[in-house]
Amino acid sequence: MAWKLTEDHVRSIAIGAGVLGTGGGGDTYLGELQLIRLLRQGKTVEVVSVSELDDEAEGCAVGGMGAPTVSIEKLPAGDEMWRSVQALERHLNTRFSFLVVAEIGGGNALNPLIAAAYSGVPVVDADPMGRAFPELQMDTFMIGGVSPSPFALADGEGNSVIFNVNDALTGEKLGRALTVAMGGSAALAMPYVKGKDVRAHAIHGSITLCRQIGDAVRAALRDKTDISEAIASVVPARPLFTGKVTDVEVRTTGGFSRGFVALEGLDACAGRELRIDIQNEYLVAWEGDQPIATVPDLICVLDQESGMAVGTESLKYNMRMRVLGIPASEKLRTNRALTVVGPRQFGYDLDFVPLQRLR
Amino acid sequence: MAWKLTEDHVRSIAIGAGVLGTGGGGDTYLGELQLIRLLRQGKTVEVVSVSELDDEAEGCAVGGMGAPTVSIEKLPAGDEMWRSVQALERHLNTRFSFLVVAEIGGGNALNPLIAAAYSGVPVVDADPMGRAFPELQMDTFMIGGVSPSPFALADGEGNSVIFNVNDALTGEKLGRALTVAMGGSAALAMPYVKGKDVRAHAIHGSITLCRQIGDAVRAALRDKTDISEAIASVVPARPLFTGKVTDVEVRTTGGFSRGFVALEGLDACAGRELRIDIQNEYLVAWEGDQPIATVPDLICVLDQESGMAVGTESLKYNMRMRVLGIPASEKLRTNRALTVVGPRQFGYDLDFVPLQRLR
Repeated sequence: MAWKLTEDHVRSIAIGAGVLGTGGGGDTYLGELQLIRLLRQGKTVEVVSVSELDDEAEGCAVGGMGAPTVSIEKLPAGDEMWRSVQALERHLNTRFSFLVVAEIGGGNALNPLIAAAYSGVPVVDADPMGRAFPELQMDTFMIGGVSPSPFALADGEGNSVIFNVNDALTGEKLGRALTVAMGGSAALAMPYVKGKDVRAHAIHGSITLCRQIGDAVRAALRDKTDISEAIASVVPARPLFTGKVTDVEVRTTGGFSRGFVALEGLDACAGRELRIDIQNEYLVAWEGDQPIATVPDLICVLDQESGMAVGTESLKYNMRMRVLGIPASEKLRTNRALTVVGPRQFGYDLDFVPLQRLR
Repeated sequence: MAWKLTEDHVRSIAIGAGVLGTGGGGDTYLGELQLIRLLRQGKTVEVVSVSELDDEAEGCAVGGMGAPTVSIEKLPAGDEMWRSVQALERHLNTRFSFLVVAEIGGGNALNPLIAAAYSGVPVVDADPMGRAFPELQMDTFMIGGVSPSPFALADGEGNSVIFNVNDALTGEKLGRALTVAMGGSAALAMPYVKGKDVRAHAIHGSITLCRQIGDAVRAALRDKTDISEAIASVVPARPLFTGKVTDVEVRTTGGFSRGFVALEGLDACAGRELRIDIQNEYLVAWEGDQPIATVPDLICVLDQESGMAVGTESLKYNMRMRVLGIPASEKLRTNRALTVVGPRQFGYDLDFVPLQRLR
């Protein structure tokens, strides 16, 4: 069932995207403002379900590439997402009939909706991550064997680049270098897909889930009930830790935000310490040398005061945080998927242990 | 008049390209070997004159992008030049009827001939530099207002990238970043031109001139006569300095070879010192704080022992050198051209003074 995006939806999606972003995907605030402005100008965004896609319909995923730290420093031009899609259309000499959310976390949940508002092309209620990931090969389309080529990058100044690469890892390497040269962030139209690819490989219902999480959080804020429980009413989230930030280091390097945040336990966690490693997203949460949650499962850090998820670009000393774990989509937990998004792919000598079986 | 390339031509062109390279354009040795092997395999290369081109015929210039220091460390795959052209053809959905030499200096004089041997597409006897330059916007097509877009970069592994940029300087910035990501060198197909563009903007007869310089040097080597005089019999070269290398520093940084070489005078130059600044090519030759030759004029450094031009990648302590100056093409000395290839564009607080008027 297709639905039209309202301002109220946008507010919920921005909140839910923070939760699903697991720290990454970029800040949501600017995208939320832009999208609401576009809707007020009379632009419309139609969200269609996967079941409505024709097998042979053509489209692409779209989102931002770059470090979350850049997302709050370099303002978007606004139309770069749609320009990246247009560059890909022109190269393929075709017109797309749908867009896909490239990652449902952080500002990247809103970026495809902004492209849709510019173009009138509907957005499919699906994404290939169910979260945010730092690298381009880390999605269920690539894991499922969809070709990464051709793909497009665009900046906010009218420049665009088309890549034809042998594999997604090469796409990541070359695309990352170009993103850095474009100022640390760029719009990415990738991959080119058909309706049947979305049906076979994507995680269905992502936008709806994102909106439901946002609705639940907003209701809890209104009713002054527990935010973690509100999130847990929509996704199987479990509390991992409560504490305040005692150390944080996030550097923008090689096109990524890299570093860690350390928390000292409060309340029931008093006397304990947690450290979370960061590459754009929260990757692995450690208590001493024991991982208590690892990629691809989601590690969600909430500000205890506002109830909002905190991106890795917004961490500050002394913030009081609630840390939740959310199991990743089953599509990210297959043996094949774990060779792309498991802890070893991020340099850890660790096998993935599902959140449910840790502790 | 069209002519077919022979092994003997290749040997002369390789030598002449060293002279016109003004230190850059990459080492010629590997290209010479590859081209001779292709000719021995029965491949043919046809060189056509500018006057033979139809106004509306389509083609592109082709050459290597990257630091000369990389040209002797990273071996070419062989077919990357032709692959970059093919990537551009595919993007434009056309077939080219000619190739242009992107720069007639160093290995880049041979690269288009290699692409021609692979493809059978003729090469035009022209180039847009009459020498080598380090940056992509520094050519007579760009100076004349030909669009830089679209252009293609390809590596030796089958990856290719198409750029659509607002201006050539942006093309340089983005293309350089990608070249570095591709390992420090890449094949560049740029710009896309028509026959009339070559006629209006290129420097005509470049391959022939290159071959004539090589012929003259080879004759001098055979007859044991003076190499500088042999070169001066073809182009208005003038001796600038004779000396041995007392210091050399060439670093590969940001996709360029940068540094300097210092010479201590010998023979008639005894007691004098020369320093030549380097960005891929020899840019400015200084005696104390006095420039004795600057871009866009050519500074050619010959090894006194072998008589061969020495690229900036091959400088060594204690080498004995002859330094010649060769006036640049008049197309590079216009006021407009000097805003792109004059000394100020390389960061010097210097106006261009033609070689003839210096000293």
